Formats: sequence, C-alpha cells, structure tokens
Amino acid sequence: MPTIKEAIAKSGLKDGMTISFHHHLREGDFVFNQVMEVIREMKIKDLTLAPSSLTNTMNEMVIACIKDGTVTHITSSGMRGSLGEFISHGGMKNPVILRSHGNRPRAIESGELKIDVAFLGVPTSDDYGNANAIYGKSVFGSLGYAKVDAQYANKVVLLTDHLVPYPNTPVSIAQTQVDYVVEVDAIGDPNKIGAGATRFTKNPKELKIAEMVKEVIVHSPYFKNGFSFQTGTGGAALAVTRYLSEEMKEKDIKASFALGGITTPTVELLEKGLVEKVLDVQDFDRGAAEGMAKFEKQQEIDASYYADPSNKGAVVNKLDVAILSALEIDTHFNVNVMTGSDGVLRGAIGGHQDAATAKLTIISAPLVRGRIPTVVKDVTTLITPGESIDVLVTEVGIAIHPNRQDLAAIFRKIPQIPVFTIEELQQKAEQIVGVPEPLLFTERVVAYVEYRDGSILDIVRQVKPIEE
Amino acid sequence: MPTIKEAIAKSGLKDGMTISFHHHLREGDFVFNQVMEVIREMKIKDLTLAPSSLTNTMNEMVIACIKDGTVTHITSSGMRGSLGEFISHGGMKNPVILRSHGNRPRAIESGELKIDVAFLGVPTSDDYGNANAIYGKSVFGSLGYAKVDAQYANKVVLLTDHLVPYPNTPVSIAQTQVDYVVEVDAIGDPNKIGAGATRFTKNPKELKIAEMVKEVIVHSPYFKNGFSFQTGTGGAALAVTRYLSEEMKEKDIKASFALGGITTPTVELLEKGLVEKVLDVQDFDRGAAEGMAKFEKQQEIDASYYADPSNKGAVVNKLDVAILSALEIDTHFNVNVMTGSDGVLRGAIGGHQDAATAKLTIISAPLVRGRIPTVVKDVTTLITPGESIDVLVTEVGIAIHPNRQDLAAIFRKIPQIPVFTIEELQQKAEQIVGVPEPLLFTERVVAYVEYRDGSILDIVRQVKPIEE
Repeated sequence: MPTIKEAIAKSGLKDGMTISFHHHLREGDFVFNQVMEVIREMKIKDLTLAPSSLTNTMNEMVIACIKDGTVTHITSSGMRGSLGEFISHGGMKNPVILRSHGNRPRAIESGELKIDVAFLGVPTSDDYGNANAIYGKSVFGSLGYAKVDAQYANKVVLLTDHLVPYPNTPVSIAQTQVDYVVEVDAIGDPNKIGAGATRFTKNPKELKIAEMVKEVIVHSPYFKNGFSFQTGTGGAALAVTRYLSEEMKEKDIKASFALGGITTPTVELLEKGLVEKVLDVQDFDRGAAEGMAKFEKQQEIDASYYADPSNKGAVVNKLDVAILSALEIDTHFNVNVMTGSDGVLRGAIGGHQDAATAKLTIISAPLVRGRIPTVVKDVTTLITPGESIDVLVTEVGIAIHPNRQDLAAIFRKIPQIPVFTIEELQQKAEQIVGVPEPLLFTERVVAYVEYRDGSILDIVRQVKPIEE
Repeated sequence: MPTIKEAIAKSGLKDGMTISFHHHLREGDFVFNQVMEVIREMKIKDLTLAPSSLTNTMNEMVIACIKDGTVTHITSSGMRGSLGEFISHGGMKNPVILRSHGNRPRAIESGELKIDVAFLGVPTSDDYGNANAIYGKSVFGSLGYAKVDAQYANKVVLLTDHLVPYPNTPVSIAQTQVDYVVEVDAIGDPNKIGAGATRFTKNPKELKIAEMVKEVIVHSPYFKNGFSFQTGTGGAALAVTRYLSEEMKEKDIKASFALGGITTPTVELLEKGLVEKVLDVQDFDRGAAEGMAKFEKQQEIDASYYADPSNKGAVVNKLDVAILSALEIDTHFNVNVMTGSDGVLRGAIGGHQDAATAKLTIISAPLVRGRIPTVVKDVTTLITPGESIDVLVTEVGIAIHPNRQDLAAIFRKIPQIPVFTIEELQQKAEQIVGVPEPLLFTERVVAYVEYRDGSILDIVRQVKPIEE
C-alpha cells in the first residue's frame, strides 16, 4: 500500500474495533504515533488499544486519543509517565486491563482478546509480508511479541523502512499472515531501544545487592551444569550477570539457556560458551538485537513460547532461576511493579508474573528508595503473588519465603548471606524512612490487574485529588 | 514417554479418530510402520489415516490395517505399488480422498480435516518437543509438511532417534505444539529419501526433452533477472536444472528463488549465486537435506506457505516457471499424474495442481512410454485442469495451450522449438503405439480427487477384474 491511510482503509478498520502494536522499539518507536495520527485524521472512534506494551514515547498520543474518543479501552502490560498519571487521575472512563507478556498470548489464543487490525513495525519486509527484525536500518532483533499478533489478528499491516526483494529471509513473520505492507521513512530509532537500561551500575548499594544475588544463586541447589536463568535489565541485573559469569567460569558451570528480554552481557555469555542457548523474546539493546543475525544459538521465540500458561509448554516452565525487581514487596512476599508510592501507575507487569514461576525466584530490590520504603506491610497493588517468590535480596540481607525451609537451611549456613525474616526487613525499612501516610483513593476503578491465567488479581483505583 | 504404546495411550487415541504422519523420509521412513504396528496391537479400529502422503515402504502395513479394520478411511496425496493396486481393485470400502500438498493444509486450517493425533518423526528433539530435521542421524532437511500437523493436530507425538538437551534449536516444530516425545532406535534411513529420483539422466529422449524445456523457458518473457522457478525431481528435471543454470550463467541472469521439493542441483545454484533463495518445503536427497544446516538462504517453509490457496499468500502465487510431469496429458491439456494406463492408482498429486498456477507451467513428458501413449484424447483421471497448463514439451516438439497465443507468437519464431497443436502430438503418439483398448471400470468409486480449493475434480473407479 502506498500510504498508511490506504492500508487502514483496506483493512476495514471501523469504530469499536481492536487494534494492536508491539513495543519492541521501546522509546525509539515511531510506528505507533504515525499510525494513530492517521486513525485520528480518519475519525475512527471507540477503539480498543491492545499493544504488547506502551512506552513513554507513545504517551502524549494515547492521551490525545483518549481525549478525542479515538481510544476508549486499553489493555497493556503497563504504562508510565504522563499516561500513568492521566489514567490514575481518572482520565479514561473504562478501566485499563493489565496483562503480563504470557497472559496476553493466552488471551489472544483463547479468543478473549480478539485483534481486528495489527500494525506491526518491521526493520525489513518484502512486498508479500515476509519480515524479520535482524536486517535493515532499524534492527531490533526478536519479533517475539509481534509474532503472536501476526498469527492471530484478523488483518495484519506491516510498516517497514526497508523494503527488500521477494522473498525476504529469514522469515520471522510470514507472508501467510500478512495483509498489507506499507513503506515508511522510519519505523524508529534503534539507539533508543536500550534507553539507559543497559549501563553497568556504579551505585555501591546496587553492586552490593547484585553481589548478594549472585551468592544466593551460587549457593542454591540450582547452580549446576545445565541450569537456566532469566536476569532482566537495569544496572543491578547487568551486575548480577557479570558476577554470575565469573562464578560460572571459575566453577566450570555452563547454563543450558538464558531467557527473556536479552541484553548484550547475556549475548556475551553465549559467545564465551557459558550459556548454550539464548531464548530471545525481546532485545533490550543494540548488541542483543544484532546478536540474532550473528548467532544461530540466539533463538527467536514468540511470547506464547516464552510464557503463555495455557499452551503445551512455555519456557518459563523450564526456568531454574529468575531475578526480578520490585517497586514494593510486602511481608507476604507479594510484589508490586505497577504503582508508585503515590498510587499512580508507573510500571509494567512485563514477564514478572510469568518468570516468577521459576524454581528459584529472587526479588532484587533496595530496602528503601530515597524516602520511600520498598519492603512494606502491604503492597499498594498486587502484581505477583508471594507464593511465586522464593527469596528477597536487599543490600542488608535476604528474606526467604516461609515455604522454602529447604533454602533457609542452606543459606543460614553461609556467612556472606545475612538471613532475616521479611518482617525484620520491613521493620528496618520503616526505621529508616518511617511509616508512610496511607494513600487516598476514590472508589473508581482505573485498572484491573490480571494474573497470567486471566483471573483478576487486583484493582487499581483513581488517586484522590490532593485538593480534596 | 518411554514407549510408543504409552504415548498412544496418553494421547487418548480411540476408535474412529484421525491420525497423521509426514512422508519426508519417503522410502526410508521407519515411523509409520512402527506406530501402526503398536496401534494394531492396541486394537484401535476404524481410524482415518491422513498422512501428507504414502510411500511404498508403508504399503504392506496400510493394506494389513485396512484388512483388519484398523484403518477404514484414507486421505493422502497419492499412493503407489501394492497399495494402489489394492485400493483400485476395491480393497477398501470407503473411497480415498486425494489432496494436493496445498489443499491438505487448506483442509486442515478450515477444519475439514481434523487431525486427532499426529505422529511425527524428527531427526532431533529435546524432551519438551523442540525439533528440527537439520541435525541428528536421520537428517531430512525441511519439516514443511509436518509443521502444519504440529500446529493443528489436537495431540502431537514426536518420535526421534536423537534426543538432545533442552533447548533444542533451531526450532522448526515448537514445544508449544508438542504433547509427547518418544525416543526410538531409528526413525528412518535418510539414504533412501532420494531413492533414485536424483540421478542425472543419460537417456537421450529425456535429455532432448530437457533441452527443449530449457529453450522454452529461455525464450519466454519470464526468463529475466529475478525470475522464479520450480523444477521437481526425476532425471529429466535435473537435466533441466543443469541446462538452465548454464544459460543463467551465460546470460548473467539470477533467479530470485527456487521452490518446491529441493534437490542437490538446486542447492548448488544457491551456492553458485544463480538463485538468491531456496524456499524449501521438502528435500529429495541428502545434499538438499544437509543444505538447510549450511545455508541461511535455504529457507524452510511449511506446506501452507508453499501452496495453500486459502491463506493470505502462498509462494506458488509468486511462481514464474513450473516444470511438471505427466502420466497422461490430453488434447484439453488436462493432466493425469495419478492413474496408470491400466486405470490403477500409481501416483501422487503432490504439488502438481498448486505449482501449475505458475505464470508459465510446462509439462515435460515423452510422447509415449513403451507401448503406452502419454498424449491422449482424454485423461483417465483429471488431476490438473488444462487451463493451468501453458506448454507441453515432448521429444518431438511442443504444444501451446490455445489461451496462450502470446507464447505461440514467440515460440513459432524459434527454429529449435518445433511447435505443434496438441491434437497433432496426440496423433503422433497414436501413430506410434496405436489406439489403446478402453479401460473397463466397475461403478464403484475407490477415490475422490479434489482440486486444491477442495472441490471434487474427478473420481477414480474400481478397475474391472480381468476374469469378468
């Protein structure tokens, strides 16, 4: 199709339908704003927006679309910044539905979430819709989230800034799934995929936590040849990966696979032969994105394969060690990665609920952040149930879930791992920052949090305006 | 699962269900007989057998299964040898349904053909069902037909003779689609995949036909940079590939892709840079099978991608030149590749109907075979409608479909291409071998031939016993 507008017209997009996007380009995404601008021009209203997630670069457009009635429903992995503020202050009539990266394909496959038109940015495609994200000018590596949309959406529109002769290979998204291809000037800025998430930390507190996470893993019964892990992003996670790789080299231990959103340090483990395979649903920086073209053992997987609890076998079922973050963790080990200390939406479920099914799930988090406690009596919003969590690691020591007496018996004998009860850690946090004022909410629900199986886990209410 | 029997029991296979197999290992397949033997032992009856095709090595087992009531319905691409004889002589009560390689995925995707349990042999798998056919001891390259079964069958059982640590990559069949994995001693003998189909011919008649096919292609308007082709197997097809490659080299013409069942000479074109990509649904010899591990540009495609007329875009829609064979071709250019001169089933539709949608479809066939005419007044069984065929090439000259006056205008000017009407060629054949006795059939239908869109194209009747 010569233009986005003609592709939208051909797709049959109408008032009330559901549209989707992927967020692989993260803060460098140009696709969402381009497409939504045209949809607004075409005055199509009352859409359900169902992207794999929403990034800050999309916020102003989403808010504009809500205000003018273009978008009236949203389901996403999360939302941050101005959009989170807008929704939390009651900016949209209908509550948002928040789903994990594994829950989304489950909802799509089951028919709960029916996508009418998917708009998918791809770094390279031919005119028949064979696409991949490993060649072109806006390489982002894995098309993991987008592949599910391509397979299930009624109509699929590809946007590419690098049209190549037929047939384009390797085939990540196949011609059999694609209705229209539009060439655009740019689908994104791949330099902004990472957006600071992949700098190695120099923060002593973060390094201390990373060191202790490493100790927990290394002394756990899972640290042996063929173990598997998911680390995630952020400075502390990268530090964990580095410390872990040193131990693996020293003890001659090889991992069978590393999973998840992939960063350059993980791909380096593959290069060094310290992990056998990388299973890649999303890349968090240029190095990781470019790895897929270089390494056969960096295998692209889709979001269903990654984490869908209802298919015949997701990778998270095979995961030994997961290192996850938390905005809050409470004395029941329940974790909140969605709402801030002010009750405002400022996070994303991502794969948190999904990876937390690992045999050893570690929450890596500081006791407090500035004047805000991380370890609390009750989380503001329940995202991942405490039963999924095995160990909390903070800069002062760890807490072990009461269900894991086996781990407690081990770690209590390791001098470099101070073990506390979760209540003790909560009290330590309280000693530092005091007891926060209780948050005030209205009765109105602004978001539903689903668990990965589709059940409702929690609700997020509108924050009470300060002037009341 | 420790044994095939336990996997079958777990799969819930019951009387009246539909089971499937792939035929990638062709005459070297050990999977079909192993599985059917166990099913017979378990006394499961009244099954519909729905493999991608049936090869001679399966024949005796199929006949035994029909005789004891294990199998009461069959749908296949074709059948040969003793099984063809058995069916054509009325050995099974219910008519066989014959479908092309593109029609089968169409029927599966539409729900017309619902597979309850698929038994799929794979040269390598992990315990969770990630499989490919490019590594292991029984490498056969593309899993093109099997991929459709893995995706749509209710239960999927993999049989492998090379179990590898999790996670096995590259992932051709994914863990998300697999229920059970069984390790067996051997899934097949990969040396028998080719079974003589890939020897370069020394037969002067075949070489003459190949030479003329080449002339037709080279003088057609489709022979230009970026053209695409499917040649097929058999000595004459390989000769065409060789002759064509010489012309391509001389005229500095590169093909965009070669399609179909792939042979070593096609992979060599890729190596030489004479074709940009190979789209590979099936490999016909060891060299082709091993190519997929070596060449990124030898892309595995599934049968739907190859030829399904109902998906969003099959490769055959993009095909410029197809060279196909015929047991019979009649004066309406209708082609029979299914029944012999005795009316007995001895062929397979394969991709014949599908590839015949190419812009230039050439039937390459001798005027007569021994005392049997190839060019006839009316085909015994209609497999591919004459409207799909553009040119018939024989050793004495070519005939052009009346719809293609554009081609006639070109070829009549080429001295090395003698042009006849199809009636003239039929008469030449008749002059050589005379008029065959008309075949005698009973009223009983033994097979339905579907067109690629699922409509009934023809029926095959039981041959009349000679003693009547």
